[in-house]
Amino acid sequence: MFDPAPILTGERRALARLITQVENLTPLAEEALAALFAHTGRAHLIGVTGAPGTGKSSLVNELTKALRQAGETVAVVAVDPTSPFSGGAVLGDRIRMRDLSGDPGVFIRSMASRGALGGLARTTADVARVLDAAGFQRVIVETVGAGQSEVDIARMAHTTLVVEAPGLGDEVQGLKAGILEIADVLVLNKSDQPGAEAALRALRASLEIGHSVKADDAWQPPIAQTVATEGRGIAELLEYINAHRTYLRASGVWQQLERGRLRTELELRLRETLFSRLVNRLENGQLSAVLDKLQARQIDPTAAVRELLESEESGK
Amino acid sequence: MFDPAPILTGERRALARLITQVENLTPLAEEALAALFAHTGRAHLIGVTGAPGTGKSSLVNELTKALRQAGETVAVVAVDPTSPFSGGAVLGDRIRMRDLSGDPGVFIRSMASRGALGGLARTTADVARVLDAAGFQRVIVETVGAGQSEVDIARMAHTTLVVEAPGLGDEVQGLKAGILEIADVLVLNKSDQPGAEAALRALRASLEIGHSVKADDAWQPPIAQTVATEGRGIAELLEYINAHRTYLRASGVWQQLERGRLRTELELRLRETLFSRLVNRLENGQLSAVLDKLQARQIDPTAAVRELLESEESGK
Repeated sequence: MFDPAPILTGERRALARLITQVENLTPLAEEALAALFAHTGRAHLIGVTGAPGTGKSSLVNELTKALRQAGETVAVVAVDPTSPFSGGAVLGDRIRMRDLSGDPGVFIRSMASRGALGGLARTTADVARVLDAAGFQRVIVETVGAGQSEVDIARMAHTTLVVEAPGLGDEVQGLKAGILEIADVLVLNKSDQPGAEAALRALRASLEIGHSVKADDAWQPPIAQTVATEGRGIAELLEYINAHRTYLRASGVWQQLERGRLRTELELRLRETLFSRLVNRLENGQLSAVLDKLQARQIDPTAAVRELLESEESGK
Repeated sequence: MFDPAPILTGERRALARLITQVENLTPLAEEALAALFAHTGRAHLIGVTGAPGTGKSSLVNELTKALRQAGETVAVVAVDPTSPFSGGAVLGDRIRMRDLSGDPGVFIRSMASRGALGGLARTTADVARVLDAAGFQRVIVETVGAGQSEVDIARMAHTTLVVEAPGLGDEVQGLKAGILEIADVLVLNKSDQPGAEAALRALRASLEIGHSVKADDAWQPPIAQTVATEGRGIAELLEYINAHRTYLRASGVWQQLERGRLRTELELRLRETLFSRLVNRLENGQLSAVLDKLQARQIDPTAAVRELLESEESGK
């Protein structure tokens, strides 16, 4: 039986344990997520994405410190989707903990895909929801910016920061083309380094060409110039982030984004439930027999689906 | 009405048109894939993945030429999953076409995620199936190696090549940790460049540490050293690829892989069909009313699913 009290009061060990359960898709996690759902929807979810070498982690570190100085509580989820089997992203915790450990208003968690049985985007959303219920005012989700799963993760945020840096080379620049379009705030980090001027011009040009795919056409993504390792530009970046939140709330886009997310989640759950129900109703070996026929090319996949659904209908 | 004849004889314009239909998930594509299914299962599917800068495209180009010299027909699908909205990967076509155009035994196609309505991995699998039915003996699927979707694409291949190169820096190395584990053949390209010796040692060490997650524990991934721009090492690489195919067939793993893929596909189709059937049976506005309650936190997602499924049951 799940007791929500320690989570709702942000008790750290209870939080850490529950997140592990969420990663492992346990029945307790399902129960907890259902019970906590009524307490969610308040946190500002901030996605931070960017290629390796842009200094995302330092930036998130500084942003967290700035938010703490402003009296806000912050949870950070660092996601490494590039290691599907062996895990990764464990280094980050320790480096950050040096600056932020001992502060009860900060909670940091690393996740690799290994633990994400239901898919990394789904698990990340569930973990963010737990942290939301625990009362953290800002939940920052940091991912490496390349590939669809990272885009999915960024999409679940209210405010997405895309972090760039000068001098990462042309091929890496190419990688970012799609990522740029999901940015609510662009960050040019390491903006004191050679090539910063050129990178800034390139970003401005990309923004002019790029079309927003979000619901909020009225928001023009600003560009923050930072040097995270020295804490420079962080205050300005935080102003942009807060301006975006104000805009989302005033325009009603906040509600739209949330409805879209809930709709996607509901549909996914319906698919899963319908499928498990079907499998339970089929006779033993029936799925396997259809697979035999498929593999022998005696039927095609569309016909295989028809056969299984018809036998379910008639078997009721 | 779909006419399979031009596809089965490998007529290029018919192929190009059908692949566009497959990318756009049209009803004709569904019909065509069902009709062509009986003619699939013969091609050797080769996945090629690796970080930007490893020279994947040149390598695929040389591999294609070597296969052509051995009298085999080759289709290449170049996938760029890093540009989810605006497309990409169109450059590749033209560069390659210079060497290989006019050869009826080669077919090259680039795909970006934009056209992939049903998900890039699914679309890529369907395109590979069309090319398989068209009689190409080898179908090479090339993807950028980072992120889950690329891993999914590599997984659908019989033989997966992971391409590395010396001197890509530590952070990029880190990216590859998970990718290494899906390799059936490792390729150290640009092996004449500084740092090649160290990269080779690192690859050997990774192979010793890494555990295979594939069904074929008996296969030890060899390391091919190539300089694709000069055609060096390609013959040896092709020997490794062919040895892996021989191994797959002799061990029965070829059949196991195919069954696993067909099972995944069947389950996905069942989920989709069950979901559409549910949506059709619900009353107008019913889904929206449940979403309202979810958004107001009056019910949780589990309860929302229960409510919708119960109303479907009682409405029958």
